[in-house]
Amino acid sequence: MVDLATRVWNHKWKIDPIVRSLIDTDFYKLLMCQTVFRRRPDTRVTFSLINRTSSVPLAKLVDEGELREQLDHVRSLSLRRGESTWMRGNTFYGKRQMFTPDFMDWFERLRLPDYHLERVGDQFELVFEGSWPEVMLWEIPALAILMELRGRAVLRDLGRFELQVLYARAMTKLWEKIEHLRQLDGLKIADFGTRRRHSYLWQDWCVQAMHEGLGESFIGTSNCLIAKERDLEAIGTNAHELPMVYAALAEDDAALRQAPYNVLADWHEEHEGNLRIILPDTYGTEQFLAGAPDWLAGWTGIRIDSGDPATGAETAIRWWQERGEDPREKLVIFSDGLTEAKIAELHTRFRNRVRVSFGWGTNLTNDFRGLVAGDALAPFSLVCKAQTANGHPTVKLSDNPGKATGPADEIARYRRVFGVPEQERQEVLV
Amino acid sequence: MVDLATRVWNHKWKIDPIVRSLIDTDFYKLLMCQTVFRRRPDTRVTFSLINRTSSVPLAKLVDEGELREQLDHVRSLSLRRGESTWMRGNTFYGKRQMFTPDFMDWFERLRLPDYHLERVGDQFELVFEGSWPEVMLWEIPALAILMELRGRAVLRDLGRFELQVLYARAMTKLWEKIEHLRQLDGLKIADFGTRRRHSYLWQDWCVQAMHEGLGESFIGTSNCLIAKERDLEAIGTNAHELPMVYAALAEDDAALRQAPYNVLADWHEEHEGNLRIILPDTYGTEQFLAGAPDWLAGWTGIRIDSGDPATGAETAIRWWQERGEDPREKLVIFSDGLTEAKIAELHTRFRNRVRVSFGWGTNLTNDFRGLVAGDALAPFSLVCKAQTANGHPTVKLSDNPGKATGPADEIARYRRVFGVPEQERQEVLV
Repeated sequence: MVDLATRVWNHKWKIDPIVRSLIDTDFYKLLMCQTVFRRRPDTRVTFSLINRTSSVPLAKLVDEGELREQLDHVRSLSLRRGESTWMRGNTFYGKRQMFTPDFMDWFERLRLPDYHLERVGDQFELVFEGSWPEVMLWEIPALAILMELRGRAVLRDLGRFELQVLYARAMTKLWEKIEHLRQLDGLKIADFGTRRRHSYLWQDWCVQAMHEGLGESFIGTSNCLIAKERDLEAIGTNAHELPMVYAALAEDDAALRQAPYNVLADWHEEHEGNLRIILPDTYGTEQFLAGAPDWLAGWTGIRIDSGDPATGAETAIRWWQERGEDPREKLVIFSDGLTEAKIAELHTRFRNRVRVSFGWGTNLTNDFRGLVAGDALAPFSLVCKAQTANGHPTVKLSDNPGKATGPADEIARYRRVFGVPEQERQEVLV
Repeated sequence: MVDLATRVWNHKWKIDPIVRSLIDTDFYKLLMCQTVFRRRPDTRVTFSLINRTSSVPLAKLVDEGELREQLDHVRSLSLRRGESTWMRGNTFYGKRQMFTPDFMDWFERLRLPDYHLERVGDQFELVFEGSWPEVMLWEIPALAILMELRGRAVLRDLGRFELQVLYARAMTKLWEKIEHLRQLDGLKIADFGTRRRHSYLWQDWCVQAMHEGLGESFIGTSNCLIAKERDLEAIGTNAHELPMVYAALAEDDAALRQAPYNVLADWHEEHEGNLRIILPDTYGTEQFLAGAPDWLAGWTGIRIDSGDPATGAETAIRWWQERGEDPREKLVIFSDGLTEAKIAELHTRFRNRVRVSFGWGTNLTNDFRGLVAGDALAPFSLVCKAQTANGHPTVKLSDNPGKATGPADEIARYRRVFGVPEQERQEVLV
């Protein structure tokens, strides 16, 4: 029987929205947003979209009008009552009232600020400008929209059964990964794939498949809406934008050198336990750890997000040992460019030396490689980063020069200030 | 939105019926049924189920009570008005009113006769007894029910996503076959997979996928219900049961030798064009063709259903040439144990020498090999055949002694009467 009401209702949509909720975003965005809201609410920032894979001509594939419609739809969203209830009432990382009443009051009234969109050659220039706590919330929806519009463009001409077989193949592919991962005793893995997902519904499927297939080994998702709808743990801590903006606001080289530690000092005041995770690579992991204050060695763990992951973990283990900490009590979260083979390798290598965990992104929620002609759904590297803070350019070095961002002279200055030597370039796929 | 009415309605089913319509059967069954109804309505027959793959312990896998419920459900079915309208009003093989008013009046009032079911060891003894035109209609539903109950038993303990991935894999597998077949220029292929299908819904999916994937190369389905619902051609001509029963009724060896030709003489009176397809292998193809009357060489084509298919086609081509017919105008339908590789091979070998067509069965609608643990869904060879006619045992020799049926002394007699020498045994998989 056809559900008449549903059918007529569906016909009323002018568009098929890609992002339908303000909490269809990464959990750490909300955590960081609260920190920014409380500590740096007046900072003016610009965020902009960068397609690191220039061979994917986004503006040729995606209609500008459709992109505007999707972005406009996000601007029409505000926090729904049930979403607010979930944020206020839920337990996150074992803690109640993670989000304070003043932040929630503000967030309930929030609508995302305007955007600037322009086609430049075969790419889009998409820039968000305004106060930091507002603008930062554009990152995830903007990326998810562009990823999905690109996918829709590629799939437009496929037949109904071709489409079904495409998804059948993608499901089969993911399930084979899950069957592989299931053999890893003591595995802990979460979904970190919101920003570069194929689509919301596909991410939702992937999360449920991981949940059924891996059981206890699947510890949750970074996506708040999916965590809410599927009654899973929301996972995430903090990201590069905090040290990048703090650093851009530093008044001199001495303040610059101190900025990344200031970020974590603020975080230390606000969070405990599993939320105390160091993200050390913004300006080079080795130098960051060498210069870190002792209280940072007491933190729960570290997230390895660039460079060779095994090297990063070895560096962290050495550092903890030097600071008199027992690495076996420490958490190492790998979250960069993970394949199931890489996960297996890292898990096997480190599981008896530290507590290992994985945040799995693009290869979980958008692995359609080899599934359509011309590999037109192959993942590509799209980011949306803080570009300026109060008029100063931001800089990221990371442990891979392929992921560095910022003006050349500023990159050189940061290298000097943080004492970062030549790094090994690694290919950036996602 | 949940469709409340549908949900409540679904809860009212006491069982989930496998066969829901009297026309969920092969088209040729209805054609043959009409012939039998008009010419031999009073013949008493028994049909019985034979599992040629004794390694599949059907009675251990399938609950007897569930089997009875499904068989009882079929006995509750009668022809629906729309089904009758379709049979009366549709064009089959270019002809209107294929089914005569007297046959339709009878068929509209028909309910299937009772069955005898007994568990013997790990197999079921399932026998149907009564008048030929009624009993013969049990063959396809009985087979489809047992195939599907076996599948349900195997799938019972799978999780929701495991199930989805199982079907995703099966879809992927079929689509790869379709992509392979799509490269065969001028291919003509039909679905013949009702009796050994995985399930009705799966057969329906397979048919639609073939339709989208192969376009004009997909010429239709043997399943009347799917042909009706999907507006496709219903495909099929005649089967071994006609010569088997005619032969069993023969009073002496001379009449026996003549019986297979009498079947086709009756058919010749009733049908023309593409329905005039010789099925020559019941008692050995070579001998049948050698002794055939000249008018049979004028028929449209031949169906190769046992033995080495290329040899069978070569035999037919030689025979047509000997009888002064042009093989290039003749149709050769291959319908035995086809894989996509075999289809490609036969198509390539014969397409410029005859008109080639394929009736694809088990490997189309029930290829789940390698998709579950222990290969528990691997196809097996289940048949439901005429066993006696007016008390006389039936015999089939076929071109493969592995497919021969009947009492040993009668098989020996038939071999002598039809002059069939030792044949090459071929493995029977489906």
